[in-house]
Amino acid sequence: MNTNPSNIMALTSNTSNKKETVCIFGTGDFGRALGYRMIQSGYSVVFGSRQAQTSSLIPKDAEVLSHAEAAQKAAIIIIAIPRQHYNFLTPLAEILHGKVLVDVSNNLKLNQYSQSNAEYLAQLIPGAKVVKAFNTVSAWALQSGPLDASRQVFVCGDDKKAKQIVMDIVRALGLTPLDQGSLLAAQEIENYPLQLFPMWKFPIFLSLGLTAFFFFYSLTRDVIYPYVYENKDFSFFIAISIPNRICPIVALILLALVYLPGVLAAIIQLYRGTKYSRFPDGLDKWMLCRKQLGLVALAFAFLHVLYTLIIPIRYYVRWRMNSGVLSQALNNRTDPFINTYGWLNDSYLALGILGFFLFVLLGITSLPSVSNSVNWREFRFVQSKLGYLTLILCTAHTLVYGGKQFLNVSSYRCLSVILLLMARER
Amino acid sequence: MNTNPSNIMALTSNTSNKKETVCIFGTGDFGRALGYRMIQSGYSVVFGSRQAQTSSLIPKDAEVLSHAEAAQKAAIIIIAIPRQHYNFLTPLAEILHGKVLVDVSNNLKLNQYSQSNAEYLAQLIPGAKVVKAFNTVSAWALQSGPLDASRQVFVCGDDKKAKQIVMDIVRALGLTPLDQGSLLAAQEIENYPLQLFPMWKFPIFLSLGLTAFFFFYSLTRDVIYPYVYENKDFSFFIAISIPNRICPIVALILLALVYLPGVLAAIIQLYRGTKYSRFPDGLDKWMLCRKQLGLVALAFAFLHVLYTLIIPIRYYVRWRMNSGVLSQALNNRTDPFINTYGWLNDSYLALGILGFFLFVLLGITSLPSVSNSVNWREFRFVQSKLGYLTLILCTAHTLVYGGKQFLNVSSYRCLSVILLLMARER
Amino acid sequence: MNTNPSNIMALTSNTSNKKETVCIFGTGDFGRALGYRMIQSGYSVVFGSRQAQTSSLIPKDAEVLSHAEAAQKAAIIIIAIPRQHYNFLTPLAEILHGKVLVDVSNNLKLNQYSQSNAEYLAQLIPGAKVVKAFNTVSAWALQSGPLDASRQVFVCGDDKKAKQIVMDIVRALGLTPLDQGSLLAAQEIENYPLQLFPMWKFPIFLSLGLTAFFFFYSLTRDVIYPYVYENKDFSFFIAISIPNRICPIVALILLALVYLPGVLAAIIQLYRGTKYSRFPDGLDKWMLCRKQLGLVALAFAFLHVLYTLIIPIRYYVRWRMNSGVLSQALNNRTDPFINTYGWLNDSYLALGILGFFLFVLLGITSLPSVSNSVNWREFRFVQSKLGYLTLILCTAHTLVYGGKQFLNVSSYRCLSVILLLMARER
Repeated sequence: MNTNPSNIMALTSNTSNKKETVCIFGTGDFGRALGYRMIQSGYSVVFGSRQAQTSSLIPKDAEVLSHAEAAQKAAIIIIAIPRQHYNFLTPLAEILHGKVLVDVSNNLKLNQYSQSNAEYLAQLIPGAKVVKAFNTVSAWALQSGPLDASRQVFVCGDDKKAKQIVMDIVRALGLTPLDQGSLLAAQEIENYPLQLFPMWKFPIFLSLGLTAFFFFYSLTRDVIYPYVYENKDFSFFIAISIPNRICPIVALILLALVYLPGVLAAIIQLYRGTKYSRFPDGLDKWMLCRKQLGLVALAFAFLHVLYTLIIPIRYYVRWRMNSGVLSQALNNRTDPFINTYGWLNDSYLALGILGFFLFVLLGITSLPSVSNSVNWREFRFVQSKLGYLTLILCTAHTLVYGGKQFLNVSSYRCLSVILLLMARER
Repeated sequence: MNTNPSNIMALTSNTSNKKETVCIFGTGDFGRALGYRMIQSGYSVVFGSRQAQTSSLIPKDAEVLSHAEAAQKAAIIIIAIPRQHYNFLTPLAEILHGKVLVDVSNNLKLNQYSQSNAEYLAQLIPGAKVVKAFNTVSAWALQSGPLDASRQVFVCGDDKKAKQIVMDIVRALGLTPLDQGSLLAAQEIENYPLQLFPMWKFPIFLSLGLTAFFFFYSLTRDVIYPYVYENKDFSFFIAISIPNRICPIVALILLALVYLPGVLAAIIQLYRGTKYSRFPDGLDKWMLCRKQLGLVALAFAFLHVLYTLIIPIRYYVRWRMNSGVLSQALNNRTDPFINTYGWLNDSYLALGILGFFLFVLLGITSLPSVSNSVNWREFRFVQSKLGYLTLILCTAHTLVYGGKQFLNVSSYRCLSVILLLMARER
Repeated sequence: MNTNPSNIMALTSNTSNKKETVCIFGTGDFGRALGYRMIQSGYSVVFGSRQAQTSSLIPKDAEVLSHAEAAQKAAIIIIAIPRQHYNFLTPLAEILHGKVLVDVSNNLKLNQYSQSNAEYLAQLIPGAKVVKAFNTVSAWALQSGPLDASRQVFVCGDDKKAKQIVMDIVRALGLTPLDQGSLLAAQEIENYPLQLFPMWKFPIFLSLGLTAFFFFYSLTRDVIYPYVYENKDFSFFIAISIPNRICPIVALILLALVYLPGVLAAIIQLYRGTKYSRFPDGLDKWMLCRKQLGLVALAFAFLHVLYTLIIPIRYYVRWRMNSGVLSQALNNRTDPFINTYGWLNDSYLALGILGFFLFVLLGITSLPSVSNSVNWREFRFVQSKLGYLTLILCTAHTLVYGGKQFLNVSSYRCLSVILLLMARER
């Protein structure tokens, strides 16, 4: 009892009393990393392998035995072997009887098999207590210390005691076990690490599509048209002026799409006279990714704010302002202050600020920790009442700003460019 | 075992093995929604109803029986009936003996009854194991899939096993059970969904009151006075100039109020010579909503920053700057650079930036997930040391900015307007 | 059953049924505060003290007895006594046999003793069931109601039932118990409240060092040099111009340092041919504080953005712009628009905006609640792919901005000042 731990992170490594023995089947990357970490945490580790000999890669404090010998040494056996090789376990069924088998496997694709790996294992060795765990942790994370995202270990299993034992091991390794119930949850747990932002795909692709469309529209209108017809080079508009035109449009469309499905759903419910039949499939998916749609909209709104705020720093803007002043000075003229302009200008700015402020507020309340700490009524209040107010403010901001331009004929010169280009191609 | 789930969200619906039978008393909105969801998750559902006949609203896979018949079919009975009708259960006491009764009820007001609904139920049917659950979930959320804020299900009950069974059902429905201990917690759990930001009320009303006061003050001073005396129309100041004067004042007052009660409490403790007597009631409540006060102050500071940053984009500001330059140009004059102005201007901007930066930092550390991951000493350090520094920086920012104006007599012309208006009213 | 709770916060105080009796050894600050809170929550509290007499400081509903008498009255005994006095418990071993002893102690330094206080207590009284708890809560927090940061109570112990009992008490006091496993975790739990941002120290000191270095460099170059050689007073540059030069440099250096260790580690692994030997110690620590490095970098980037956005409001900048316009007006000259400048200026602004946007995104995903809700693959994607993209954008922003200045000879005049100062000192 004279350990003097130098590193706070080393959690339980500073414990002199030996813990139980754990057996690991498989000496691949993950098996070795897990074994290494377990030895650090005070466990005795026995590897079960086809070649019962220590390789230089295996942690030096671990024993390597044949599968049968290794299994006999421990009550907990971690199966760090791909699912395809599980059938080699059937001859060992007798030795594995009553033991805790920990399935750590992952698949390569979502729902690769109709039955989860852990359930398949439980079916192969009916006498064993199968627990699913550790599949959400990477060999790398085990090796190099806890990363935030990989501290959570989902655990499920039908045998409560076996699950408890595995959760204690998880905790001893400095990770956070999360009980997910019975082995039925295994499929879900195995799918989990394969997902790459499933709910974000639609919002992101939609916003990219909208961005591309409005980019080419603006490019034609503001760069190509003046170049072709007036021989003016406004190509530098690509950097800021055009993005700052795209961002607010995309943000507003996405924000409107957040609230549209709720309205559609209400209409469908009214029409059908019942709340209890399923919505059409598209609408269902749309409603599920509304939060993501809203956050992508917020991202575009944030970019719009940044692009707008740096306007007065731009060389182009400064030059244009200065030449405006100079032309007045040279002509001995002073433009009068027009009160209506003052009103219009200040009110669309104010509407934009208030809209963005509420939008940020919505974004903050959709952070998991914040939305978990409010109740359903509060969440509803923020997300619907404040949400609609945000939409109204942002729409008003756009209308006051763009009101005049909609009626302006020259705004539609883009059309003539497209017609021109089509004519030339023939 | 040949299910091929197409939807990742459908958690446990892709399980071919039937789960136990659950009985639901009551075929109202919530009972039906819960039954619908349970059937989706693989449970057999039996409804107990006065009219033992299937209506079109009831999920078609569910049976509808009389209360007594339905109760006999299941070990778990969900009581989806208002508290007023609980007494109809007393004749069924014998059938309900030993069963798990799940109280899902909510009240209409905070602390509507002296005894929680769940405790009342337990008293009515002493032989049953009452568990409180599901009251924080809405029928709508059960129907339309998990919303962030409604995934959490608070569960409490005196019988550990019964509670465990209910928590497993909660988990099977794709929700997150949170064990809240014994049935004593039921009152709290029943009050929970009725709250609408209870701690936010005082800070928000206070800030609205301050905003209204300073708005009318500024309106009189900057719009009405010039209009009356100088016949100048500055009404567009309402959009940005006046809000940008109100926001920093309210933010600073609220921020000061965050730190004032701590000082007062310390004075009271010193005066009383003990830490262990209760504070006066007002002070107590004030101290409890300091976090909310601080966050509302941050919101006002954020608005102030936005209003300030768009200053150079404003038409009015540009026009005024241009006419300043023009008058110099026309008079063949160039104003010299005054070093003191450079210093004053840059230092109040720098103080404001640093103050706002620390303020944002304080805001981030008050996010639940961040404040949960720091220990008490760290939280203290951030919230008190950094908090006081923020207050000092923001106060200095205001003093440097407004320093001269306090001494300026014309700033008090508001008073004369008020006096004038009062005089006219007579 | 006629309680009418006026305060929602008072959780469980409104329960008329008496809970079990708890004994507290020690009548110090913490013991009294805990007793006070327990009485509020419905427990009977007996203090064990050397002077078996009630003092005015002790909550008036509590009994005060000798240690032996008090211990006999309860099954749970809270040891609110410093570790140095634990040995007085040995004579009481017989009375304490089978009881739940709750160790609430803290140390003054990290790893003060080789054995944790709780393990030491368990060794002294082998017949008792020792549970570690409450050490992360302060007397002040117990007294004045729940603070966010102090709601979490880490609980560990070898006896599951004893642990469960203590966790129920924790919950009854309105705090959140967190099961940390066996008594082996006690050392970690005792170290926890002593930490003051251990992982933040290196990043913060490094950034302060870099700030100081670049501050003196810029001071010499932009303030002292012009003062000495050209007798111009630019001292007001200290407020904004110089900080806005330091912030982006420090932010970029820190951001690069976030991604450098990963590259170094990969090189070392390739060189050694194995992933399983430990990294050099410095590299290890560096890799562990990458998140903190990145967040400090984000803070500097945020300040840089604020300093940049207020540029057009600055008196100095306005004066310089105006005098530029005036000199053109007086000379009857209009500077032409240079397209290359437009491109350069707009593109470094756009690169900066996009870089900052991604940087903020990285910052948001590193919030605990967000990073916990993504899986390992998603976290990897955001932190490495988006991270590198951020680094590339920010570097490009700097290069486009500073490109010309690197080649500018006058930029190196700082060197001549330093040489001059050194020459004078001789």
